[in-house]
Amino acid sequence: MGGKVTIATVAARANVSRQTVSNVLNTPHLVREETRERVREAIATLGYRANQAARLMRTGRSRLLAVRIEPTRDGINGSVLDRFLHGLTEAAAPAGYRILLYAAADDQAEIATYDDLLATHELDGFVLTSTHHGDVRTSWLAERGVPFVTFGRPWGRLDPEHGAERRARIQPASRAEASEASQLAEPWGAPDSHPWVDVDNAAGTAAATRHLLDAGHRRIGFVGWPAGSGVGDERRSGWASTVGPDHADLARATVDGVAEGEAAARDLLSISDPPTALVCASDSLAVGAYTAASPGVAVAGFDDTPVARVLGLTSVAQPLAEAAARCVDLLAGVLDGGTAPRPVLLQPSLVIRQSA
Amino acid sequence: MGGKVTIATVAARANVSRQTVSNVLNTPHLVREETRERVREAIATLGYRANQAARLMRTGRSRLLAVRIEPTRDGINGSVLDRFLHGLTEAAAPAGYRILLYAAADDQAEIATYDDLLATHELDGFVLTSTHHGDVRTSWLAERGVPFVTFGRPWGRLDPEHGAERRARIQPASRAEASEASQLAEPWGAPDSHPWVDVDNAAGTAAATRHLLDAGHRRIGFVGWPAGSGVGDERRSGWASTVGPDHADLARATVDGVAEGEAAARDLLSISDPPTALVCASDSLAVGAYTAASPGVAVAGFDDTPVARVLGLTSVAQPLAEAAARCVDLLAGVLDGGTAPRPVLLQPSLVIRQSA
Repeated sequence: MGGKVTIATVAARANVSRQTVSNVLNTPHLVREETRERVREAIATLGYRANQAARLMRTGRSRLLAVRIEPTRDGINGSVLDRFLHGLTEAAAPAGYRILLYAAADDQAEIATYDDLLATHELDGFVLTSTHHGDVRTSWLAERGVPFVTFGRPWGRLDPEHGAERRARIQPASRAEASEASQLAEPWGAPDSHPWVDVDNAAGTAAATRHLLDAGHRRIGFVGWPAGSGVGDERRSGWASTVGPDHADLARATVDGVAEGEAAARDLLSISDPPTALVCASDSLAVGAYTAASPGVAVAGFDDTPVARVLGLTSVAQPLAEAAARCVDLLAGVLDGGTAPRPVLLQPSLVIRQSA
Repeated sequence: MGGKVTIATVAARANVSRQTVSNVLNTPHLVREETRERVREAIATLGYRANQAARLMRTGRSRLLAVRIEPTRDGINGSVLDRFLHGLTEAAAPAGYRILLYAAADDQAEIATYDDLLATHELDGFVLTSTHHGDVRTSWLAERGVPFVTFGRPWGRLDPEHGAERRARIQPASRAEASEASQLAEPWGAPDSHPWVDVDNAAGTAAATRHLLDAGHRRIGFVGWPAGSGVGDERRSGWASTVGPDHADLARATVDGVAEGEAAARDLLSISDPPTALVCASDSLAVGAYTAASPGVAVAGFDDTPVARVLGLTSVAQPLAEAAARCVDLLAGVLDGGTAPRPVLLQPSLVIRQSA
């Protein structure tokens, strides 16, 4: 068939756009089945994934996996990814891998770093964190056949219609049925989607909300992030689906931070018939909300950070060491030439303390 | 001269023990000058440093520097080394290096990891953290000619006589004269000692203590770690030299932790004529002390962690990004074949909040 097989070649063969091919590689559950099948046939016929860079890297076997170290920000929620990094380093060694670090300010800087890293070091693959809507990193790597796993599911492009569809599929009922650390079938990821590990964020805030309902609270507010972040929307949906639609006026959105959480909570607590409990999308927001709340107002955070432990904040804990170990497992499986592994969705747990 | 030149060859030639040779390489300021000169002559004559592994590594130039990721423990003080890691990753990239991570439970496990890393990856050098008395890691690397820098000064063997001598030399007066980020002459490190970067821990607790004296406190206690840790002893000495010898009964020692800090502070505050202010060797201890202290009792911590910021704890801040950048500078200098760089002692700063 002559010449290099690229995303464009595949797109032309399947008679779809390059973006659609990228979507099939990264977020296949967001692509219509008929289109998905056509693209997959083109990929198989053209032998797309077996390209040069991937071949070289896989035979090179440097035993190096690269991961980005994220800015510490206020040191509260930033500590979560540091703990993930600890878990990754500890899980990689017994599997025969070492972790190489890089820093990057944004997606474009990160992609430039991929280029540099692939040219300088013979990396075996990447572990990506903080996946988000319109994540161009995964398509860049997939197009070049570079093996990778993401901590965080593929969110697809930010599209209200698709977003609503996706959220509607992930109902608390089906979540409750999923066993801990379950290997998921569709619709969370098609078998040949890139491998990913995630924590069920909505289940976490749903558990916090149920705990507050069980404690007798009837007006439960939510302090979260602006709409459009995959993780933030999931955390809000866990609260929203548990309290029901008549609580829509009890949600506030703000950028992450202690002062921001305090301001949002003050606003929410100053309305008539104010909430008696607040579920927050992060411990940073919860610390602020806890400052704003009078005694008797319950507060729950997310991520069970050291700050939450010290302040006695009830918080949702992510199984970070487990998530890191699963990322290593999945990527090692890909590198060993196994079939594309199914994604892993882990269940968080609620750590109850005096604040709620 | 036939055969491999080892520490033992040098020791035999200089008519000293292997330990003394190792001390000259690692903590020369703890070795008598006459002995030091004799060992250095033997090293020069035998061409000790120019050994095989080092040669190979330096010509290989993998552009990889390895650093240990430490256990998170309670997530309070552990966050300090995570921040150092961020700084290291960010400083390494512009200098053309990447950071490779490893975990190790103790010194022996870390040395086994060096062996594995040197066999598997062509590392350019190591950045060691958490130096301590009797640190066998530095001598292992020095014996093999592996380039490294330590964040933390060389502490030598734990020897009360030498320890006292060393502490006596580091007087607050001479510290005060040292400008920030000064390149130090002896006695902190001989010119051919291994390169190191440290933060002046004693200056930090001295500044916290002076701040409390200035605020009118006359009985100032100290909650620190058991004697024998280089960093802990320095932090106690900064307090001790500032309050004077009549405060000796106002110090308590305990292992690090919030509950431990609370217990030690309760004990200290229950004596007759109790202290009205407490200087603590860590933010973990300070968080506990703050819980134990009645309003009006001032508390200061160490490391300016996110927990200290949230609780409003006055705390000593280490310039971690600067320390990391200096480590990269020193190691890059060694790798570029420069002369052995002088050690760097950075000054901490006191962050004043409502707790003191």
